[in-house]
Amino acid sequence: MNEAWWFNPCRMLDLEAREQALQRQQQLTKPGGALGELEWLAVQLAAMQGQLKPSLEHVWISVFAGDHGIVEEGVSPYPQEVTGQMLRNFVAGGAAISVLARQLSARLEVVDLGTATLQDDLPGVRHVRLGLGTRNFLTAAAMTREQGAAALLAGRESVERAVAQGCQLFIGGEMGIGNTTSAAALACALLQCPASDLAGPGTGLDAAGVSHKVQVIQRALRVHRDLSTDPLQALLCFGGFEIAALSGAYIACAQAGIAVLVDGFICSVAALLAVRLNPAVRERLIFAHSGAEPGHRHVLQALQARPLLALGLRLGEGSGAALALPLLRLACDLHGQMATFAEAAVADRPA
Amino acid sequence: MNEAWWFNPCRMLDLEAREQALQRQQQLTKPGGALGELEWLAVQLAAMQGQLKPSLEHVWISVFAGDHGIVEEGVSPYPQEVTGQMLRNFVAGGAAISVLARQLSARLEVVDLGTATLQDDLPGVRHVRLGLGTRNFLTAAAMTREQGAAALLAGRESVERAVAQGCQLFIGGEMGIGNTTSAAALACALLQCPASDLAGPGTGLDAAGVSHKVQVIQRALRVHRDLSTDPLQALLCFGGFEIAALSGAYIACAQAGIAVLVDGFICSVAALLAVRLNPAVRERLIFAHSGAEPGHRHVLQALQARPLLALGLRLGEGSGAALALPLLRLACDLHGQMATFAEAAVADRPA
Repeated sequence: MNEAWWFNPCRMLDLEAREQALQRQQQLTKPGGALGELEWLAVQLAAMQGQLKPSLEHVWISVFAGDHGIVEEGVSPYPQEVTGQMLRNFVAGGAAISVLARQLSARLEVVDLGTATLQDDLPGVRHVRLGLGTRNFLTAAAMTREQGAAALLAGRESVERAVAQGCQLFIGGEMGIGNTTSAAALACALLQCPASDLAGPGTGLDAAGVSHKVQVIQRALRVHRDLSTDPLQALLCFGGFEIAALSGAYIACAQAGIAVLVDGFICSVAALLAVRLNPAVRERLIFAHSGAEPGHRHVLQALQARPLLALGLRLGEGSGAALALPLLRLACDLHGQMATFAEAAVADRPA
Repeated sequence: MNEAWWFNPCRMLDLEAREQALQRQQQLTKPGGALGELEWLAVQLAAMQGQLKPSLEHVWISVFAGDHGIVEEGVSPYPQEVTGQMLRNFVAGGAAISVLARQLSARLEVVDLGTATLQDDLPGVRHVRLGLGTRNFLTAAAMTREQGAAALLAGRESVERAVAQGCQLFIGGEMGIGNTTSAAALACALLQCPASDLAGPGTGLDAAGVSHKVQVIQRALRVHRDLSTDPLQALLCFGGFEIAALSGAYIACAQAGIAVLVDGFICSVAALLAVRLNPAVRERLIFAHSGAEPGHRHVLQALQARPLLALGLRLGEGSGAALALPLLRLACDLHGQMATFAEAAVADRPA
């Protein structure tokens, strides 16, 4: 990790475009503030894109997948084969994010960072195999320094491809059986919280399963207590590959000046890590939703995030961010296309 | 009001389609329940449309406008001319709902039920003039029986046009300076609440303005206390034309078997009235959002509604419902297009 590119400065917001967008909002034919969060969205996107009327025609979705050694401890009700099977489903068009990307005319890229069971290359999947999943973090660090650096870089490289295609908004997604356990442990280390605050049912553990997961994480936090106060070390301790790639992607977006729409619990933990590594990343992040995983709200609070949706989602894959995308697009359409009071000859107040 | 069509029975939900949709949801490649509210939406729409895979290609939006005599009491910061001016803006394409309808490929109809200031017919507006606005309900009933019946019927006629065009989902919107005061008074009568529970800033009253609005409504509730316990009488007492048309439209949708997406505070009060007149209307209603107007949550609670969005919206026009439409459409796309575990050869749990 000689070349710590993730500390490099981020692109600044365009405050002049922000101010002009704010003024335009006040002239549109509606009571001031009547479009609530959508007004803030349009203004923020104007600042991020550096133009009075932002556009979100070109949206890029990268789904990062990886397996987790911690599943040896029985922290997920699903078998580990599902990670590889879902990679196939993503490119075959049958997964939730596949349907959403198609309906939203977004570009979907699927990146395999290392699964336990997928031997052959899959057409349409980009394979960046860093191992057969991470190691069990109860017994060792989940990732080596080399694996961590390569995973962060894989995220940056996705953003480079996105930028080359004219991407105006980046969505990251993830798939990996066991990854709520990794994400919860990482968030505990970053927030100095007990495991009971961050561990939840994930894909569907019952109460006994959640209790076991809490104990596994609590033991792991003790195992790694000397190292995990540093954000990067915490990432290496708990993984996973896909979480590192998401963090790398978010940082690269902020450096390139691309807006990010953050998905659920795992993506929010990756965002928290990205912000801890490089605080200026925060101002490029829009938070799509508050999910069903109970720990999500702690992470959102730590990021001072105001998520757009709260629909009880807990799927991942970037699906919650994709579901929020129409709100961002319509916010831009309203901002760009509504008439001003002067144009429409409508009386502004006061009476 | 001899012909009280609004009491006629509503079309029943298709419980077989509902059951089949529920079974399909459990076979899709995601943990059960992982799509949260979207799963419930798809299943409800299947029951409403009587088919396993519901579709929302054809969406109809009717915006009903009318003026309110109560504005004489100084309950709005905007001049009454704005109602007519906004009718012009709706058809010229510059209003929020015009932009949204265009972006969402929804059919937009604008119905003028009687304004104080608009003399000439406007191309593209359907004029059903029931008067120069309602009467000041501090001194008389807002509407005569004939006006009330005609306004309810105007709503039904919009639905008849929508059905003739193949409408699969109906959105009602409203415009009328002073109509949060009308809606709040009507809701107070229906819910037997004090005015302070239901009156809010509307388009932008300050604290003193809200306090005055509360007093105006409280006086009006005393003036009409003998009549306003009956839902239909309460409608006549407090108005307005556009609220009656919305109620009539919602009832007609339920009778014709069309799903309804309910907008904000005023539309929710119209929905409450519709349900009080004909309780089976309730099961056709999907609530788009919880708005900024403080009284909205009381009305939503009374309807046991679970609104999809909470974005601080307070514009009306049907805009909040239009903003929620992509979520419904994506819920249908996910439900209809995702692969099942068997189709994708993905292992369902248990491990």
